[in-house]
Amino acid sequence: MEAALLAHIAATFRDRAGNVTLPPGDDMGAIRLASGAEVLAGVDQLADGTHIDLAEATTAEAAHKAIARSLSDVAAMAAEPRGALATAALPRDWNEEKGRALSDALAERAAHWGCPLFGGDLLRWDGRLHVTVTVLAEAEPPAPIRRSGARPGEGVYVTGALGGSGEASEGKRPRHLTFEPRLAAARYLRRVGAATAMIDLSDGLGIDAARLAAASGVALELDAARLPVAAEAHRAAERDGTEAWRHAVADGEDHELLFTASDEAAARLGAAVEGVAVTRIGHAVRGRPGRPAATLRAPDGETIDATRLGWLH
Amino acid sequence: MEAALLAHIAATFRDRAGNVTLPPGDDMGAIRLASGAEVLAGVDQLADGTHIDLAEATTAEAAHKAIARSLSDVAAMAAEPRGALATAALPRDWNEEKGRALSDALAERAAHWGCPLFGGDLLRWDGRLHVTVTVLAEAEPPAPIRRSGARPGEGVYVTGALGGSGEASEGKRPRHLTFEPRLAAARYLRRVGAATAMIDLSDGLGIDAARLAAASGVALELDAARLPVAAEAHRAAERDGTEAWRHAVADGEDHELLFTASDEAAARLGAAVEGVAVTRIGHAVRGRPGRPAATLRAPDGETIDATRLGWLH
Repeated sequence: MEAALLAHIAATFRDRAGNVTLPPGDDMGAIRLASGAEVLAGVDQLADGTHIDLAEATTAEAAHKAIARSLSDVAAMAAEPRGALATAALPRDWNEEKGRALSDALAERAAHWGCPLFGGDLLRWDGRLHVTVTVLAEAEPPAPIRRSGARPGEGVYVTGALGGSGEASEGKRPRHLTFEPRLAAARYLRRVGAATAMIDLSDGLGIDAARLAAASGVALELDAARLPVAAEAHRAAERDGTEAWRHAVADGEDHELLFTASDEAAARLGAAVEGVAVTRIGHAVRGRPGRPAATLRAPDGETIDATRLGWLH
Repeated sequence: MEAALLAHIAATFRDRAGNVTLPPGDDMGAIRLASGAEVLAGVDQLADGTHIDLAEATTAEAAHKAIARSLSDVAAMAAEPRGALATAALPRDWNEEKGRALSDALAERAAHWGCPLFGGDLLRWDGRLHVTVTVLAEAEPPAPIRRSGARPGEGVYVTGALGGSGEASEGKRPRHLTFEPRLAAARYLRRVGAATAMIDLSDGLGIDAARLAAASGVALELDAARLPVAAEAHRAAERDGTEAWRHAVADGEDHELLFTASDEAAARLGAAVEGVAVTRIGHAVRGRPGRPAATLRAPDGETIDATRLGWLH
């Protein structure tokens, strides 16, 4: 339903006043203020039982993930975060100390990434913990980098390593609770003018690649053999007897950046930006009606539809 | 707990980067962008079972209330709304049509008040409906009008009529589901430079008067005999055998504006602004340690502490 509803929202969007410079459908939206300045804004929810399980994760981890998810959207636009608002619906059995710990952790994480928490709303209820984080950001030229700028012939790149974000390992907490929003890498990509289109990987490489492709009117052809597979994806694959690349494509919550770039621009990047690996995993071709927006060549040579490979909350 | 936690948040607020021009503690916060523009932002939650009961209210009413609550905060700052973001956590048993109706109603209400919905986030979960609305706004001089500008000797004024916002009557839906954010009245007050401090009445006159008084370092002395008592408050009082002014002080969810003004400025206002009644209900005096920030003279002449008269969600 979410996909259909999101499509409906994008399709029925109207802006009578003409202030909206980035309508619904990208990682963030944007409006132009009367003063002429453009401000980007986005909001994400973190719900206990959906994005996090408070039976095993801490309050501090919930705060980290809530702030980092919203900042990952800022990175996807190659924008600069300026400030954040948070809401929390607290379970009725939380005492004041626990509420304070959450609030302190949200403020600390926001400040850590240069994005002061300057407001919010709080309530207690009979439901499970529900947190939202709204982030305001500003573009610096040539940002914002939208999902819609990819052109046939460009390469497809991804930061970091993919898959197994839910796996705990060797005393390390699962990556979906500890990931670093790729703000520095995005800033670098903006400065060198490398990325033509960008999205953050939240629901899985397959689904998110299809989103970028659809917004750009191209198709992305990805190669499983080229994917930067995370150690946790290998571990998950060993345990469940599948192949690690399947975890890299479909696990979701990687919060890495997927972007397209011309060969000329990519040559300026090298194998890493700001200490984060950058890997070419495929290329963009002309989109054709009736053909999937994202395909993956499996190691056995078979080409599979990747548009549903992922995990929708 | 909420009050203690909010006090903790305000007390521990730090802004390392110095971008925050309005810290937590008012109806909205504000940051200065790198471009020099100042943007106000605020967010409110609407939870089924807390602010609304979907067993008796419609999806459209939930959308109205969610948008109007956030715009009432904009009115309280005498600012101009520019755009909104919404999140919705939808109950798992909602079908697509119901999700679409909510989304359409949120967009329609936001556009109705000149504040296009330009982004958001959506999920389905096992909990009850939870909606947030973030609003971005801009101040126009001499806005924003803060809670902290009241001075001893000024009069205390309120728009509209108070009490019984939860009462249905004569085929009319309860006012808490249908109220109009006082954007036009606030705009008028801004233009004539009348209000020195302002707040919107969400939790009840007593509690919210105490908030304005505490932020301004004054005490507010209110007079029960002067309160503009809503017809619904009279009806509620008749039914439960209390006095109507008690409902006007304590029922909450009036979403009227409470403001202070000098006698000279108030003389320019008359009895109504933009078709909304304005009533003088008391005056500000010097705050004194150990004395309540808001008191109410009851019709029997007794002065009572008003700081807890209201309804905290």
